[in-house]
Amino acid sequence: MSSAAFDFVPLLPAGLPPPAARWTGRVKYDFTGGNNDADGLPLEGLIAAADAVLRREGRTLSTYGLASGPQGYRRLREFLVAKLKADAGIACGADDILITSGSLQAIDLVNGTLLARGDTVVIEQDCYQGSINRLTRLGVTLVGIPLDRDGMRLDALSSALDDLKRKGIRPKYIYTIPTVQNPTGTILPVERREAMLRLSEAHGVPIFEDDCYCDLIWSGERPPALYAMSKRGGVIHIGSFSKSIAPALRVGYIVAPWDVMSRMLALKTDAGTGALEQMVLAEYCATHFSRHVPALRRSLRAKLETLMESLNEHFGTAVEFDDPKGGIFLWVKLPDGVDTMKLYEPALAAGVAINPGPQWSVNQGHARSRMRLCFASPSHEEIHQGVAALADVCRREFGVPASSLSDLKT
Amino acid sequence: MSSAAFDFVPLLPAGLPPPAARWTGRVKYDFTGGNNDADGLPLEGLIAAADAVLRREGRTLSTYGLASGPQGYRRLREFLVAKLKADAGIACGADDILITSGSLQAIDLVNGTLLARGDTVVIEQDCYQGSINRLTRLGVTLVGIPLDRDGMRLDALSSALDDLKRKGIRPKYIYTIPTVQNPTGTILPVERREAMLRLSEAHGVPIFEDDCYCDLIWSGERPPALYAMSKRGGVIHIGSFSKSIAPALRVGYIVAPWDVMSRMLALKTDAGTGALEQMVLAEYCATHFSRHVPALRRSLRAKLETLMESLNEHFGTAVEFDDPKGGIFLWVKLPDGVDTMKLYEPALAAGVAINPGPQWSVNQGHARSRMRLCFASPSHEEIHQGVAALADVCRREFGVPASSLSDLKT
Repeated sequence: MSSAAFDFVPLLPAGLPPPAARWTGRVKYDFTGGNNDADGLPLEGLIAAADAVLRREGRTLSTYGLASGPQGYRRLREFLVAKLKADAGIACGADDILITSGSLQAIDLVNGTLLARGDTVVIEQDCYQGSINRLTRLGVTLVGIPLDRDGMRLDALSSALDDLKRKGIRPKYIYTIPTVQNPTGTILPVERREAMLRLSEAHGVPIFEDDCYCDLIWSGERPPALYAMSKRGGVIHIGSFSKSIAPALRVGYIVAPWDVMSRMLALKTDAGTGALEQMVLAEYCATHFSRHVPALRRSLRAKLETLMESLNEHFGTAVEFDDPKGGIFLWVKLPDGVDTMKLYEPALAAGVAINPGPQWSVNQGHARSRMRLCFASPSHEEIHQGVAALADVCRREFGVPASSLSDLKT
Repeated sequence: MSSAAFDFVPLLPAGLPPPAARWTGRVKYDFTGGNNDADGLPLEGLIAAADAVLRREGRTLSTYGLASGPQGYRRLREFLVAKLKADAGIACGADDILITSGSLQAIDLVNGTLLARGDTVVIEQDCYQGSINRLTRLGVTLVGIPLDRDGMRLDALSSALDDLKRKGIRPKYIYTIPTVQNPTGTILPVERREAMLRLSEAHGVPIFEDDCYCDLIWSGERPPALYAMSKRGGVIHIGSFSKSIAPALRVGYIVAPWDVMSRMLALKTDAGTGALEQMVLAEYCATHFSRHVPALRRSLRAKLETLMESLNEHFGTAVEFDDPKGGIFLWVKLPDGVDTMKLYEPALAAGVAINPGPQWSVNQGHARSRMRLCFASPSHEEIHQGVAALADVCRREFGVPASSLSDLKT
């Protein structure tokens, strides 16, 4: 018998993603990912909540699903009923909500319930990488709709749906992040929401509304959710606590009518979402959420201003961006000659991590010279230094910005 | 435009599982599921651990994966390195471990990495329902190997592998729960482990070792893990904190060689397992695990004795079972005339939930008159009353036990 290591390779099925690389630690200037502001984490409140909820009902941890059944901790669902009513205009009950292990599991459950290989979905052209990757892996055709400063362009959506209809294709859903769109930071106005719902109903194509950034609007005012505005219930709504409280707490949720909820629930075979995280969130949020979020918004807005100032200082006219209405990211246009996929590696070597535009878009040409910069996690000083370092790399690799603007300005 | 509710049904793909039923609350006498002894939950210790770990490093919750990368909280992996070495003889490092959202996600990741529709796997004939259901849903052929009082029969495994080889079929893995098998409660002796490893290597079929009950052995002594005994590394090992600490904390783990670990990691697209649960478990277990588990074992053993006494009292000679060597369940044989699939509904109507044997076996004939009774969660009084109620239902439906034995004995 050979003493060589067991070879698993012949056993691997076709179509697996490439193997993961070993983790090598965090990057010094990390402008990627949904990481949040560590100073904005309501730590004392979470500690007090953990203590209180565990003392009151901690022994329910010995039961799968606590005493709440498979849709998640009842008190967290009840908090969401009140929050969704107050903020998003959604009238629903606790049984219309399914707590998930982050909004990524919510996306997986929606996709598992509606999609088969070869299906088509309509999405915003520039869009969340996690959604694009999942759909691509599922063998689904993505039809991207361009955005402007008010989010998805409804004229383009209408044309795309007509075009698909002519081809005999009924898309499975329209995926949208209408309230602080990822990565553009736009907010779809009420009139466009009405128009989107009309198109959805006319074409029999449901809307998949991903509202995971909706709490982080500078003005604190948001339009009603598409779910709330729908008269016929053709909307599946998802959200998350990752952006408003902490991303490492893996808790999201789905709001959906029972005929589709019951299908998603049948696919949720994980024996429940982490109960301690649900309990602590429910306990904390019931009394503190509405005060915590405005403070978090202010700290995020301040970091965004540091980022925009740093970009103007170090890149000058070589960057274009719109001041986003909320969120944790900025969608930045570099000169046409810059390919952000080729900027990525040398930037990383210089300690700066960025999200290259083509990974956040279904239109590679459009996104080629764009990048997404997340600003919630790095400190103000790290933002400033990281942007300076990125400008140096970009100049070296692509000749822009043309000269050291910060030198010129001093 | 019609005002009827949006109809999702035409959009559902083929092959979905049936819709879930609405949850109607817990059953009075619940002998199903891996629920644990609420009195055995180390609540004070968990509360103290939550406070300590959050005060020390709670702000890392603002970062996906804490500061530990995608394989899970480093201190929890370090606890596991020490525990697996001390208990199971496994020599591994923190980078050989992937923390998962319960051992169910571990099973999903192993299956996702190795299986395609049409594949074959070898499993214990009577086996964990969650594993059977997953494999069935994936379109995999299950070859069941009979068990005796020492677990999987190696003569039968040898014959099955030879038979498959003659047919040109190389199974993707041998799935086994060798240490407190679910549902039989057996423990595979060292000699059988050696023989299983020889067969695994000879046939080039890896072993998938599910060790999630291994902490709950009455004697406290367990054989080394197959993973530890393997010379060539053809074993994937998984475990869980559900049985030793609390099931609602959704934390399990995989130990595997990097060439297969890197594939599983690429499929773990959930942005991490719940961080608070990992942190609290690591903090608690590092100092308390080795004292907590023996106390839990004693309370479980006492409940098992109540269950066996109750069965003898109310069913008399109409039940057969072996006293299991550990765990939280008893595998019970009723007279041949009893079909436990048909016992299930009337028992439930009487407030008693059981696991019918055919749901826990790939041999429907063998399992027809068997059932699994879980004893960790109900109180001693509930066990006694629930078994009495079950005996009444069984007598009414199937004529056994023949008369009210408890009456005769008084």
